[in-house]
Amino acid sequence: MSVEIPDIVKPLVSQRGLETLIKVKTFVEEECIPADKLYHAQIRNGDERWKSVPPVIEELKAKAKARGLWNLFLPSYYSEGAGFTNLEYGLMCEQMGRSHTAPEAMNCAAPDTGNMEVFARYANEAQKKEWLEPLLEGKIRSAFCMTERFVASSDARNIQLKITVDEERDEYVLNGTKWWASGAGDPRCKVWLVMGKIVDKQGNVSTNDVYRQQSVIIVPSNTPGSVVVRPMRVYGYDDAPHGHCEIQFTNCRVPRSNIVLGEGRGFEIIQGRLGPGRIHHCMRTIGVAEQALRWMIYRAADESKRTFGKLLREHGTMNANIAKSRIEIDAARLLVLAAAHKMDVQGPKAALVDIAKAKVTAPTVALTVVDRAVQSFGAMGVSQDTPLAYMWAGNRTLRIADGPDEVHTDQLGRRELQRVKAIQTEFAKREAKEAEFMAKL
Amino acid sequence: MSVEIPDIVKPLVSQRGLETLIKVKTFVEEECIPADKLYHAQIRNGDERWKSVPPVIEELKAKAKARGLWNLFLPSYYSEGAGFTNLEYGLMCEQMGRSHTAPEAMNCAAPDTGNMEVFARYANEAQKKEWLEPLLEGKIRSAFCMTERFVASSDARNIQLKITVDEERDEYVLNGTKWWASGAGDPRCKVWLVMGKIVDKQGNVSTNDVYRQQSVIIVPSNTPGSVVVRPMRVYGYDDAPHGHCEIQFTNCRVPRSNIVLGEGRGFEIIQGRLGPGRIHHCMRTIGVAEQALRWMIYRAADESKRTFGKLLREHGTMNANIAKSRIEIDAARLLVLAAAHKMDVQGPKAALVDIAKAKVTAPTVALTVVDRAVQSFGAMGVSQDTPLAYMWAGNRTLRIADGPDEVHTDQLGRRELQRVKAIQTEFAKREAKEAEFMAKL
Amino acid sequence: MSVEIPDIVKPLVSQRGLETLIKVKTFVEEECIPADKLYHAQIRNGDERWKSVPPVIEELKAKAKARGLWNLFLPSYYSEGAGFTNLEYGLMCEQMGRSHTAPEAMNCAAPDTGNMEVFARYANEAQKKEWLEPLLEGKIRSAFCMTERFVASSDARNIQLKITVDEERDEYVLNGTKWWASGAGDPRCKVWLVMGKIVDKQGNVSTNDVYRQQSVIIVPSNTPGSVVVRPMRVYGYDDAPHGHCEIQFTNCRVPRSNIVLGEGRGFEIIQGRLGPGRIHHCMRTIGVAEQALRWMIYRAADESKRTFGKLLREHGTMNANIAKSRIEIDAARLLVLAAAHKMDVQGPKAALVDIAKAKVTAPTVALTVVDRAVQSFGAMGVSQDTPLAYMWAGNRTLRIADGPDEVHTDQLGRRELQRVKAIQTEFAKREAKEAEFMAKL
Amino acid sequence: MSVEIPDIVKPLVSQRGLETLIKVKTFVEEECIPADKLYHAQIRNGDERWKSVPPVIEELKAKAKARGLWNLFLPSYYSEGAGFTNLEYGLMCEQMGRSHTAPEAMNCAAPDTGNMEVFARYANEAQKKEWLEPLLEGKIRSAFCMTERFVASSDARNIQLKITVDEERDEYVLNGTKWWASGAGDPRCKVWLVMGKIVDKQGNVSTNDVYRQQSVIIVPSNTPGSVVVRPMRVYGYDDAPHGHCEIQFTNCRVPRSNIVLGEGRGFEIIQGRLGPGRIHHCMRTIGVAEQALRWMIYRAADESKRTFGKLLREHGTMNANIAKSRIEIDAARLLVLAAAHKMDVQGPKAALVDIAKAKVTAPTVALTVVDRAVQSFGAMGVSQDTPLAYMWAGNRTLRIADGPDEVHTDQLGRRELQRVKAIQTEFAKREAKEAEFMAKL
Repeated sequence: MSVEIPDIVKPLVSQRGLETLIKVKTFVEEECIPADKLYHAQIRNGDERWKSVPPVIEELKAKAKARGLWNLFLPSYYSEGAGFTNLEYGLMCEQMGRSHTAPEAMNCAAPDTGNMEVFARYANEAQKKEWLEPLLEGKIRSAFCMTERFVASSDARNIQLKITVDEERDEYVLNGTKWWASGAGDPRCKVWLVMGKIVDKQGNVSTNDVYRQQSVIIVPSNTPGSVVVRPMRVYGYDDAPHGHCEIQFTNCRVPRSNIVLGEGRGFEIIQGRLGPGRIHHCMRTIGVAEQALRWMIYRAADESKRTFGKLLREHGTMNANIAKSRIEIDAARLLVLAAAHKMDVQGPKAALVDIAKAKVTAPTVALTVVDRAVQSFGAMGVSQDTPLAYMWAGNRTLRIADGPDEVHTDQLGRRELQRVKAIQTEFAKREAKEAEFMAKL
Repeated sequence: MSVEIPDIVKPLVSQRGLETLIKVKTFVEEECIPADKLYHAQIRNGDERWKSVPPVIEELKAKAKARGLWNLFLPSYYSEGAGFTNLEYGLMCEQMGRSHTAPEAMNCAAPDTGNMEVFARYANEAQKKEWLEPLLEGKIRSAFCMTERFVASSDARNIQLKITVDEERDEYVLNGTKWWASGAGDPRCKVWLVMGKIVDKQGNVSTNDVYRQQSVIIVPSNTPGSVVVRPMRVYGYDDAPHGHCEIQFTNCRVPRSNIVLGEGRGFEIIQGRLGPGRIHHCMRTIGVAEQALRWMIYRAADESKRTFGKLLREHGTMNANIAKSRIEIDAARLLVLAAAHKMDVQGPKAALVDIAKAKVTAPTVALTVVDRAVQSFGAMGVSQDTPLAYMWAGNRTLRIADGPDEVHTDQLGRRELQRVKAIQTEFAKREAKEAEFMAKL
Repeated sequence: MSVEIPDIVKPLVSQRGLETLIKVKTFVEEECIPADKLYHAQIRNGDERWKSVPPVIEELKAKAKARGLWNLFLPSYYSEGAGFTNLEYGLMCEQMGRSHTAPEAMNCAAPDTGNMEVFARYANEAQKKEWLEPLLEGKIRSAFCMTERFVASSDARNIQLKITVDEERDEYVLNGTKWWASGAGDPRCKVWLVMGKIVDKQGNVSTNDVYRQQSVIIVPSNTPGSVVVRPMRVYGYDDAPHGHCEIQFTNCRVPRSNIVLGEGRGFEIIQGRLGPGRIHHCMRTIGVAEQALRWMIYRAADESKRTFGKLLREHGTMNANIAKSRIEIDAARLLVLAAAHKMDVQGPKAALVDIAKAKVTAPTVALTVVDRAVQSFGAMGVSQDTPLAYMWAGNRTLRIADGPDEVHTDQLGRRELQRVKAIQTEFAKREAKEAEFMAKL
Repeated sequence: MSVEIPDIVKPLVSQRGLETLIKVKTFVEEECIPADKLYHAQIRNGDERWKSVPPVIEELKAKAKARGLWNLFLPSYYSEGAGFTNLEYGLMCEQMGRSHTAPEAMNCAAPDTGNMEVFARYANEAQKKEWLEPLLEGKIRSAFCMTERFVASSDARNIQLKITVDEERDEYVLNGTKWWASGAGDPRCKVWLVMGKIVDKQGNVSTNDVYRQQSVIIVPSNTPGSVVVRPMRVYGYDDAPHGHCEIQFTNCRVPRSNIVLGEGRGFEIIQGRLGPGRIHHCMRTIGVAEQALRWMIYRAADESKRTFGKLLREHGTMNANIAKSRIEIDAARLLVLAAAHKMDVQGPKAALVDIAKAKVTAPTVALTVVDRAVQSFGAMGVSQDTPLAYMWAGNRTLRIADGPDEVHTDQLGRRELQRVKAIQTEFAKREAKEAEFMAKL
């Protein structure tokens, strides 16, 4: 087994990175993709869907551990880290993205990866011991409770969940509602990171600095006063047992020692969490697109699907769709890898613009490719008989999660417009020189 | 209550048509759209979802009948017909398309409408009495079993279900599998129209004329030897209790009197069924788009969704998306109505090309508009909290059903290319004249 | 010879309209299209290009007059009017749009048509006698001087050309620069309608009402103080001898009797001028698209252009492009005709929104179709050996002239958003009813 | 002065490459871009346009030489080569692409670069001495005569120009017509490389191997029997004095020593010429897009272009267009650089697919960006007052030259479909494993 990566990034991939990448690819193809069907078949019916996890996933986890494919996401600056660059790990994410079960099998699934990063970077030792260790071992899972229903929470400053301090009992008291807490449906999900505003009894925040108003609190999932209200659906899928949950907090109390990093430091925490996570999402989505393209090619050569005397592959528009998909995927991959590399050499903050470019490009490309694949399969494409429809729905949310496309595009435009002064200067110089030259006429 | 229709078609709408259209719109808005939520809430869980029908639908049917809004689809040349033109009924379909429950409430839902047309046009009196009457009364429902899994059944000549004749018992014996039999999940679905090939014991057809090999047989849904294997899903939705079913026929026997029109006349039957049905689908899809646009406008003005200091409506791209949606919907509606009118004045055959144009345009426009609306709602848009995600999935199938876009586009292209001789003549004349003129120089 | 028009508009076309339309089509095909090549060949080189007009155009004019195809654009409410509806004349425009020479041949070319409408509607008898009569006879041509270089003149309120009043000599004195005065290059162009602001000696306007600040003045083209500075190019074309000119006014004096309608009434005049003119442009652009499609079909069947063993027509993507072009043209035509008809029955003001939809749709469709045709011809397509490249450049300006697409789209969006109150009411009612229904559960 | 290049390619750019790149950028901005206006102003009128070259170009050449910016294109394996990798030189091409005069100023303009490569790789010493030396010194220019009017010459096997051998006089005799011989209009163009078929007196070729039928012959531009018939136009532009010429060969005789490489080796020669040339075109086109984006940003901040109370930059759609342009350019650049690098490490043949991806992507992106810039400038954008319209026309030809997009897309699709066997195997394995897993249920 080998793996194809763009020549242009080869110098950036270490020998160890390449070897692990090949192992990941092999594991995904040999174990994970074939297990996806069983995984879905093992999900139970009705309310039972939320009470147990398809057994195959734990078998896959054992296999992955045995192959040394575990927690590949953690950068080397954590002591627990596998030590791959974002570019290297990004290439692994592409392979993982091809299978529904692969990311979790290698303990590299969202939102746990991001949450483990938060614990690793910002939590104190006690918190790490209690939550990071079992997470790293794959014994428990976690959720991040940020999104709220009645505000535009893509702008984190709008977040409203109220946290009051009960000084007497040295506790935080949470009141409010979150939704789209992904993974909170899983019976193994034992801990939530909850974002909210610490307010006094009059409901006032302690600072006008909107970037210092948010805090992140650790809430064990069985804490009284918290209840999972319902799973949200993504098109017709509920993603049980993982789930995207609406959670109600009513006088939900946790010790003040459950604060992460410190009061008012929520913004800082999510900022640090976003960059790499977006790259991982993007690279998994590239893997989705590659897998969809495989399905499309497979279909194009299906001998039983001859229309008007031709195989699908012999129709020019089918061929053109395959070519366009190839180009679009390759361009998107380069854009994502370029962002990953920039993050590797200059850090997440310097790479923000590059990450935004990747973030608005990769899901759109993947959706386009998957939709073409769906169309090539006809009615079978929209159904449960290929993974395509489910892939599409899963990726559709990526144009919304972590800020909708429009927000990123808007910010990219503003950023680009910051060049205006430099361009005006350049144009003024040009015009002066032009005039000087024209005087020769 | 009034209704807006394009000025250009006003001369084509009768006073009675206009009055009924207004009644339909009123009924859809006052009764059906508000009932949609209850309808979905009344669908049961697990296997129970297939065993009963949300009670609200029968209440709506009673209300519709009381308002005289019943069986509006049947053209005047059937004695049972409401007598509206395709253009008039198309405008009503647009209103019905805005609500999930509206078409069935007025006994105007697919596939019953098409099936009732088949019975009305091609069935004998006994067949009409047994099946058409209760269908027209809304007492039973029906399915059309055409699509097959392992062939490209958008080309009906490929259909493989085998029908042999047991002369002794004067019965047809059906063997084969169908899927995507929409409506076959409904406990009220009592009759299927099944398309297949009559073959002898050696499996041979009796004619080489591929347009005379298919027959349509009436199969009561409880006939031994037939079994609904499973419901197909559409992006996670199973559309219970309606359902899109896979049905297995194993030595399934029905009397030879169950043939419709005659052996080998299946092609003729589906040809007659397709034209109006496509127009109705298209106009309902225009209604879907209009409803999605309403949701988008509603969202654009949502005071709680202020991002970066602006309402969504104040973002130029949101405004542009609304404008583009308005234009695209209006253009698509005109294309569909033009096809409907052509069918009215020149018949379905002459209108085939126009219907194809409408068929590839309307669903694509609707999907685009609905997707914009989804995006404007963020995570809420992909969920069960608006009808948008479900609308999208339902309309996505219309780019595939009754022939995928590619087939229609291909045929349209070929049709257009038939002009080549005339154009060559025109160009030759032009060149001769050009030469004559140029000689003056 | 016959003519195809959409069945849906047939009831709206009078017998006389249909007969004239057929005559127009015949004349365009027999005389104008073949003369286009000669017309371009008769244009001279260097500065001479601006000093004479290709003789063939006057021959065509004589032929058109002889066939009774003259001044077809003027509505019946002018005594001079041919009396066709906008819809009927629009269909004729489509035919005219297929040939570069056709509109002028029938004295139906912009900007004269719009200018003649201005004279007919707003000028006094003396002005009509001096300018409208020779224009209607095709003896002279005219230009409209509105656009200015250093302001966003798509918003007419921005227009800056200064007009002062010399009471002593009873004259207006014009100072300023206009550009894109189309037709001002033509040696037969004898009169300009110039838009500007009447200001006092301090440069102040007499009213704060920005819709009452503009006036339209008749300026004979040989008036001292006015000079045609240069022709603007459209891509590489200068459209000689017609031309799109930059004109400098320096103390250019005309009698005060040269005011049209009255001081401060410029806005009123251009408002009246815009509606029908946009429809005519749109329908000519539909004709351009149809002609380009003919060229593409012709090319697709060119026996000498066999690539990889196939004719172009046998390539699926070529076929698909032809089909898509057919659909897009037909949809755009319906949109334009719907706007024309609305203008016919409800007047230009009521049709503003419909005209805007047509205005942003038709040129974009035409450009897309022409570009596909160019591509099908390869290098020949971008060159002078087909009319396609020139067609493209001419139509590209229509996305800018009379307000760029963005302005119209923006206004359409705002207009659509005016529905928000009605939709909020509708949704509130729905929610109330929903709640009532849900209470049954 | 510095230069921005994607971080991901930085490890691939040598110190010398980076320094030269900065020098190129500086020269382009300080000298070439400001000289473009003068260059166009110095082009004469009428027939004179073809008889002299704007003097500024020779001044620029002197300046470039003085800065050591000369013949940067030749790879190190020619003794004359500057020795930059395709990736390094590609980055320089991007800078050159920003100015009309820059490529020629540094003796890096098409078609001379490709022709010099042909001479350097395939010509004998005498031929090199006569033609390569003055070309490398910038004393003469050259053209490549390949395209023919009446065949689909994007498939070189179709080329028809006839070359017969006059053994007696030891000469080749050429008969036929070429067009789109770019650069043949330039009075300094002294040599043509002409492609054609050597045939015997009966017109028969000597081999059935269609890849061995073409030969390349050196024809001095003043050879009797050859005549430049006319310049082809590109959207109205004739690109004088460079020109894209139609050339007629009538018994045009050259010595047999003028053959390049050998009889029947034409295919080999053009194959070698294509890869790098396409990359250079693509990177120049990226430079065009970057320059257009600068113009768009400049316009967006133009204080005089306030519409409806807002600067253009404050309109959301303008901002979104700028953002989209930024993303599309960056993705396209990565695709081109990836192909360049692949060519550097694996050779042109291995990079063919990558080059095709770049070739169909870069011009389309550039055209989209330039068109947005044109639209932002309104009427000024289509005119001679910005370089945008001319940029657009020049780049439009790149979707056609060296094979139209459709041919490359078609081949890419076929290439991708070659994976079908591997995918079928992979899917078969997966299905076997799936079945094994499912057996556990």
